[in-house]
Amino acid sequence: MTDAAEATAGRTGRRGRSGGGAARRAERSAVSVETARYIARNIPDFEVLDAAALEVIETNAETVLEEIGVVFSDNPEALELWRQAGANVTGDRVRIPRGLARKLCATAPARFTQHARNPERNVEIGGRNLVLAPVYGPPFVRDASGGRRYATIEDFRNFVKLGYMSRWLHHSGGTVCEPTDVAVNKRHLDMLLAHMTLSDKPFMGSVTAPERARDSVEMCEILFGKDFVAENTVMTSLININSPLTFDGIMMGALEVYARANQACIISPFIVGGAMAPVTVAGTLTQVLAEVLAGVAYSQLVREGAPVIVGAFVTSIDMNSGAPTFGTPEASLITYGMGQIVRRLGLPYRSAGGFCGSKLPDAQAGYESANSLQTGLMAGVNFMLHACGWLEGGLVASYEKFVMDADQLGALHQLAGGVDASTTGQAMDAIREVGPGGHYLGCAHTQENFKTAFWRSGLFDYKPFETWAEEGGRDTEALARAKVATLLETYRQPPLDPEIAQRLTDYVEAKKASMPDSFS
Amino acid sequence: MTDAAEATAGRTGRRGRSGGGAARRAERSAVSVETARYIARNIPDFEVLDAAALEVIETNAETVLEEIGVVFSDNPEALELWRQAGANVTGDRVRIPRGLARKLCATAPARFTQHARNPERNVEIGGRNLVLAPVYGPPFVRDASGGRRYATIEDFRNFVKLGYMSRWLHHSGGTVCEPTDVAVNKRHLDMLLAHMTLSDKPFMGSVTAPERARDSVEMCEILFGKDFVAENTVMTSLININSPLTFDGIMMGALEVYARANQACIISPFIVGGAMAPVTVAGTLTQVLAEVLAGVAYSQLVREGAPVIVGAFVTSIDMNSGAPTFGTPEASLITYGMGQIVRRLGLPYRSAGGFCGSKLPDAQAGYESANSLQTGLMAGVNFMLHACGWLEGGLVASYEKFVMDADQLGALHQLAGGVDASTTGQAMDAIREVGPGGHYLGCAHTQENFKTAFWRSGLFDYKPFETWAEEGGRDTEALARAKVATLLETYRQPPLDPEIAQRLTDYVEAKKASMPDSFS
Repeated sequence: MTDAAEATAGRTGRRGRSGGGAARRAERSAVSVETARYIARNIPDFEVLDAAALEVIETNAETVLEEIGVVFSDNPEALELWRQAGANVTGDRVRIPRGLARKLCATAPARFTQHARNPERNVEIGGRNLVLAPVYGPPFVRDASGGRRYATIEDFRNFVKLGYMSRWLHHSGGTVCEPTDVAVNKRHLDMLLAHMTLSDKPFMGSVTAPERARDSVEMCEILFGKDFVAENTVMTSLININSPLTFDGIMMGALEVYARANQACIISPFIVGGAMAPVTVAGTLTQVLAEVLAGVAYSQLVREGAPVIVGAFVTSIDMNSGAPTFGTPEASLITYGMGQIVRRLGLPYRSAGGFCGSKLPDAQAGYESANSLQTGLMAGVNFMLHACGWLEGGLVASYEKFVMDADQLGALHQLAGGVDASTTGQAMDAIREVGPGGHYLGCAHTQENFKTAFWRSGLFDYKPFETWAEEGGRDTEALARAKVATLLETYRQPPLDPEIAQRLTDYVEAKKASMPDSFS
Repeated sequence: MTDAAEATAGRTGRRGRSGGGAARRAERSAVSVETARYIARNIPDFEVLDAAALEVIETNAETVLEEIGVVFSDNPEALELWRQAGANVTGDRVRIPRGLARKLCATAPARFTQHARNPERNVEIGGRNLVLAPVYGPPFVRDASGGRRYATIEDFRNFVKLGYMSRWLHHSGGTVCEPTDVAVNKRHLDMLLAHMTLSDKPFMGSVTAPERARDSVEMCEILFGKDFVAENTVMTSLININSPLTFDGIMMGALEVYARANQACIISPFIVGGAMAPVTVAGTLTQVLAEVLAGVAYSQLVREGAPVIVGAFVTSIDMNSGAPTFGTPEASLITYGMGQIVRRLGLPYRSAGGFCGSKLPDAQAGYESANSLQTGLMAGVNFMLHACGWLEGGLVASYEKFVMDADQLGALHQLAGGVDASTTGQAMDAIREVGPGGHYLGCAHTQENFKTAFWRSGLFDYKPFETWAEEGGRDTEALARAKVATLLETYRQPPLDPEIAQRLTDYVEAKKASMPDSFS
């Protein structure tokens, strides 16, 4: 069964009804796509650092904080908070005595629930779990028919719809692409409205300015209710650190808004190794740890107990061209190592994604993305942004790659399940029944278990060569193109209280009317 | 530098000379391609089975051997050996008392050296090492210009040349494709001659009949010298078990030839889960363990101390079409689990490869192959057959995919190196030098280390979009096609004593003349 068929068959299975307008509306409101529960790992984490290396990196990170320090630019309130906490503040440089940042981090929760407007889509972030969210930030989109072009709000809505329809995607994400046809100072409103109305999965808030973070909170108060937002986490937003060792006032302003509202932030360096960090893995891990210790500690100075995720977006550079590279072994080693370090901090961990440098959803994209997705699962990542749709180093959101990656996410679910060693798993009856030289296709154990035994791609080609050739000899991009079309055609909007929908629309319209367009 | 440029620059760097015939011959004999040393892992193995699951599987495998037993068909000598060893033999069914097979396995070496005619290419199989060998067995080949077609001896020679030119490939393999234009009873001679003369990397012997195994040994005696072959392992050959639980006389006949000559065999079930084994991971591991225990034990009955590799070629089935699937999570779980089991046996382990089901070297091929290659490294595999060139479930050897996979094998080398926590690795001087808000491109540490810091693909596209578009917007297959052409154009045969070359040719001609062609 395809995702689309699953979607329309859905949980409530009201496919194919007909009737008047009222019946159609009733049917529409009952349709629901099936989304897998977030991954709860039943496999261990892969660890590349031995005890000595961990010790060295943790000690060095404290040395960096104490001797070199970090910069909080354009943010006198932050400097004051650090001073009060016992840091040594000179100008905008904050030097943090050994052990202080780690101590401050201890008040951040080890795990938290991010609520969705459909409670069945709530996600638990932390522990042994892995929550998957789509690509974030590309200014361009690509599809097989239209090629590469600037993204629009129409593209944005399409990607939200694809995310909603993707069985293995738990989270609607944030800036799935930049709607470049909407003013910079207003596009966050349209983006949030799309996540809130076209999907019922959890989503991210705006971080491009503190007032846009406030708008995000206010829109959530309409969607969830003011009391609910005061008591629960309903957004997880992405706060980037300006590596090396710099926290700019705008990003920190957004963090402050969210932390005060008890909303979650991913506090994440964005590092191209060799440019924003040393060319070595251990050196990069040291810097990343110093940065996230300072960032998480600051979130706790703003509000003790505010939920956070420790992020590590780290890739390497092609020293020939200066281009960032993806799906590389250095990135894997850093992702594994940072997983160990973050677990010792006792905090949720964000890293990895379906990363690639390729311009096309071709074999390079496949190799690089698979390397990166596998690494994310095995490294113990708790929140994986960019899990699907990422192309060309993140400059492009690809329609076809979105469904390719989203399909592979299903394989991660199965792999995370580990090995069933129950009596059914052991299958001794089957081995006895079949015996030497027999085959298992017809045996009782196979008949009872084959439907759930193997993960099956909903996209890839498994047909005999002749059938495949007769059907046009399509490559993965062509198969994905057809799947994108089917998903968008069969998409149905999840039900939402019309009054809330109206209030959200009114809010967006009023906000937009309150200020002139700005494109910078 | 491309592989081809590396190849011609080579270790002895005599590129671009000119002169008469003698000078050219001298030059040719000095040219050598650079091949990386086999991988010595500096990262741990990933383990999915807990102690209880391991115990259950090992106990169940002994139960299978004791209660169900295995079949040695058309092989009275094998039955006699088993009887003498204490097994319960009824007809061709061999029931092995609990613990006996494992005890017999104990005389097989934990690791061994496979010698190449160029001693720099010798490989150590076992321990923490990983040796990479190309695809084995496809009757078809595919390239971007000619499409899919039956393989010929010309294709075979081309793949041996590509393997020789591939920096990250340690082993020349065996049947890199089936030369279908040569008689079945003679093609092993042409294949061995190609491996022996067109490459100087280690290779595999023929297993399709006991007399062809004997021919393989005799040709090695010409290449290496009779005394050397008597004392050293110069071939590693692939012995498949007919799963479930059946050892046919022809394959065992080849094994017997090799074991008696102290040559290594991979003893390997070939399993499509759901058809030749149960649909569950634990059940499949149980059967595979029972099979390899019986197979390895038998090799030790033939000759105590004969070198072997425990194989596990396991994939799953698409229950809709019956087609085997590749790069799936079930295959990964089995590969990880079998790694644990084989390490407890103290024997070398063969599994994984660049597996895919795709008909084309497209994104599906990339995802599936990357999943499978990563798994092989992390699972502790010691010998990886099919590491490059595999397409369409192994029916096709793909020229383009060969160089794509071979390029990715470089990433495995880097990942296996783990994390350098030395003073250089820690890079504290760099972090101090650069400080908050700076960048690392020009700092002393980067200047000293950037050349070796990051693995760099010799194939993938890292260029800016505009440059890439101006150069034709090529996908990975097009890039690979160009690389194949360059490698084959710049290929130079490695030097070989002309007398040995003549004796090998004479041997092949005499053997061929001694029997009529057979195509069955």
